[in-house]
Amino acid sequence: MTGPSSPTASPTAVVVTIGDELLAGETVDTNKATLAAFATAHGFSVTAAHTLPDDLEAIARLLSDLIGRCRLCLVCGGLGPTSDDVTRHAVARACGRPLRRNPALVEDLEAKFARLGRSMPEANLVQADVPEGAEILANPIGTAAGFVVGDATTFAVLPGPPRELARMLHHELAPRMSALGGGPPRPTRRYRCLGFGESSLAARLEPRLPELEGLLESGGVRVRYRAAMPLVDVTFVLDARPSGEVLDAMDRIVAEALAPALYGIGMADLPTRVLAALRQHGHTLATAESCTGGRVAAQITAVPGASSVFAGGVVAYANRIKTALLGVSEEDLARHGAVSEQVARAMADGARACLRTDFAISTTGIAGPAGGSPEKPVGTVWVGIATPDGTDAKRLSLRGERQRIQHAAALWGLKLLWDRLVAMDLARVEVLDGQPAPAPPL
Amino acid sequence: MTGPSSPTASPTAVVVTIGDELLAGETVDTNKATLAAFATAHGFSVTAAHTLPDDLEAIARLLSDLIGRCRLCLVCGGLGPTSDDVTRHAVARACGRPLRRNPALVEDLEAKFARLGRSMPEANLVQADVPEGAEILANPIGTAAGFVVGDATTFAVLPGPPRELARMLHHELAPRMSALGGGPPRPTRRYRCLGFGESSLAARLEPRLPELEGLLESGGVRVRYRAAMPLVDVTFVLDARPSGEVLDAMDRIVAEALAPALYGIGMADLPTRVLAALRQHGHTLATAESCTGGRVAAQITAVPGASSVFAGGVVAYANRIKTALLGVSEEDLARHGAVSEQVARAMADGARACLRTDFAISTTGIAGPAGGSPEKPVGTVWVGIATPDGTDAKRLSLRGERQRIQHAAALWGLKLLWDRLVAMDLARVEVLDGQPAPAPPL
Repeated sequence: MTGPSSPTASPTAVVVTIGDELLAGETVDTNKATLAAFATAHGFSVTAAHTLPDDLEAIARLLSDLIGRCRLCLVCGGLGPTSDDVTRHAVARACGRPLRRNPALVEDLEAKFARLGRSMPEANLVQADVPEGAEILANPIGTAAGFVVGDATTFAVLPGPPRELARMLHHELAPRMSALGGGPPRPTRRYRCLGFGESSLAARLEPRLPELEGLLESGGVRVRYRAAMPLVDVTFVLDARPSGEVLDAMDRIVAEALAPALYGIGMADLPTRVLAALRQHGHTLATAESCTGGRVAAQITAVPGASSVFAGGVVAYANRIKTALLGVSEEDLARHGAVSEQVARAMADGARACLRTDFAISTTGIAGPAGGSPEKPVGTVWVGIATPDGTDAKRLSLRGERQRIQHAAALWGLKLLWDRLVAMDLARVEVLDGQPAPAPPL
Repeated sequence: MTGPSSPTASPTAVVVTIGDELLAGETVDTNKATLAAFATAHGFSVTAAHTLPDDLEAIARLLSDLIGRCRLCLVCGGLGPTSDDVTRHAVARACGRPLRRNPALVEDLEAKFARLGRSMPEANLVQADVPEGAEILANPIGTAAGFVVGDATTFAVLPGPPRELARMLHHELAPRMSALGGGPPRPTRRYRCLGFGESSLAARLEPRLPELEGLLESGGVRVRYRAAMPLVDVTFVLDARPSGEVLDAMDRIVAEALAPALYGIGMADLPTRVLAALRQHGHTLATAESCTGGRVAAQITAVPGASSVFAGGVVAYANRIKTALLGVSEEDLARHGAVSEQVARAMADGARACLRTDFAISTTGIAGPAGGSPEKPVGTVWVGIATPDGTDAKRLSLRGERQRIQHAAALWGLKLLWDRLVAMDLARVEVLDGQPAPAPPL
């Protein structure tokens, strides 16, 4: 529970994004996530986000209601020079502080237009108006300055263009965050799974929660499940940073509960972990894809530095390519069909041989919507894993529409290679943080 | 002004999205835009959007406050089976209707798990609970049914997974929208572009707007720009369905203004159009990818029936694969570097020869973050297009992070093939509707 009424050590923040386009569904509101991540990273608990049209009354009413109900209110958008930009007026009204023209901002605006070789349009002058007593947040890459104002609740008012917003958060607001009540973010620990759904993982974890509560000396363990199927992340949000010993014990308990779906702890994703394990042992990787059509290779090459491990792959969509490039026998294709254990194994072997790598992943299946049969319905996918110790294949039964099946099959391909690497003692479930995290993980 | 207090002909709607992850900044809330677009398309004016954590008290309080203040409230997320999914409880409390277990939903859940060959976890039973008197919205592709409930304000409560949400909106809620006070969606016409940003397209269109207004006999033409770079859709929202003649004239004017970025009219996406044009002329396609690492092939194979045109491809990530499988000469690699016009052309030629197709797309570039130089900075990508009439290559300068560059380069590869097909008279910009639209296009 993170509601404003619940007892919590974190100061609270509310995010307000403003713009007609956000409510017509024309634009995905990435600023909301940017602002929420920023506040969270600075130790705030974000209790709500609101989006309003460019409507002076509605914005002023909401902001007035928020005063005293959160420590910080991040307001974004509607600082432009046109008549539908009303955010500064709404903040002024909510705070009961009249707008004052700031002479330094007027000069700054004139200088910006002068640098562009243009005279400043009269309309832009309003961008020098801020509520009385507000502190300015400079915007060297746009005309809309931000500002900070307020008492019981501090309003940080920021421009909507994402690049200007990001710069202002980083350079102008971040240095003020501890003065605004920010602290260190709550520690989290993320367990990464592929192989079960959210509810199955929750059912596996449930019986171990009392043990974890005892370990963490906590009145309740907060667990978040986040699924982007077939991937599910299980994240523990902790009150304080536990000792290394306690973390190790926690990892052991959770790993037991979530096995065999668990492939890692921390931010690094599945392809990053697969590549790291292979790199550590000097091994190389190739792919041979039919139904996934390049998605296994795409997942792998999304990782910076993949080239030290990944040689390349063949997208063998037509059967004649399976034969010509991967050496799959026409007899196997005719006898067992392209979607078969034999062809999956032959494709993996062929990729390993043809691309001269140590390991290879192959996929062959029926992504739909057409092509299914009673024996091999849409969603039937064979994944082959070729290794220096031999080759095997596994049948998957995936559900959903074409692109979902293709995506899931590609990730399953990586997971089955991962499982094989673990069985071969070339990889193990461990803490790996390969990507920048919104809040620093443990 | 679209606030609930302002006089307006449109009924009002409010969007509420729920989930801790949305307020931790971990997830960009695309559902908010989906719901706002859906309500807008059905004639509602969306007056606000709110995002709350999985907090029973906070959600119930907000929903209670909204009763009587909007005609429709679209609530999304928190319908899962775990203890942090509290949305159904909050709606029940706000409406003053107790939750009742729905026997048909219990049966439905059991059947879904049975089809998976699993017994239903006890936890999933709560997904059969809905407020008394609620009407069920079926979810054949997930376990979370939606429901509609309420009097002065109708709450439509929907699952969070985007695919399940989209399906439920289209198949379950859309047919009920006129009973809920919605009007018919406004006709739209979508022009699909790759090659310029939003503001450049707007500047190109601006001078032609008076002409379009005259044509449509409209007081003002409403144009929406929606960018998922490098793609930009330009959508006209019309008051009434124009005659075929007027539409043709409109298409001509817009095509002139948006050329050469425009590749199509209507819902069908770029790979669908490329494949349709090739299929129509009996031509086949292959790919040879370095920096895009399989993403061109993945875009192509996302289209159902791609196999009649697409033979396959080579992901030639390591230079030795470019040589061994695609026949790129070691001399070209040594003299010009892997990221060069010569190598892009040789890769495209190699794919066309090795996979025996009529056309081929190749990519080679620097996706970053490492590997850039002053002559070839990160974002430098060469795309090769091989055709029966010869081969050419084009240099792109893309911006952003690694995965954004990879994604943009893959789509540019398809666009450059498209442009070549247009130049060869094998394709033309035309109306093609290959995918279900949120609002039926003209």
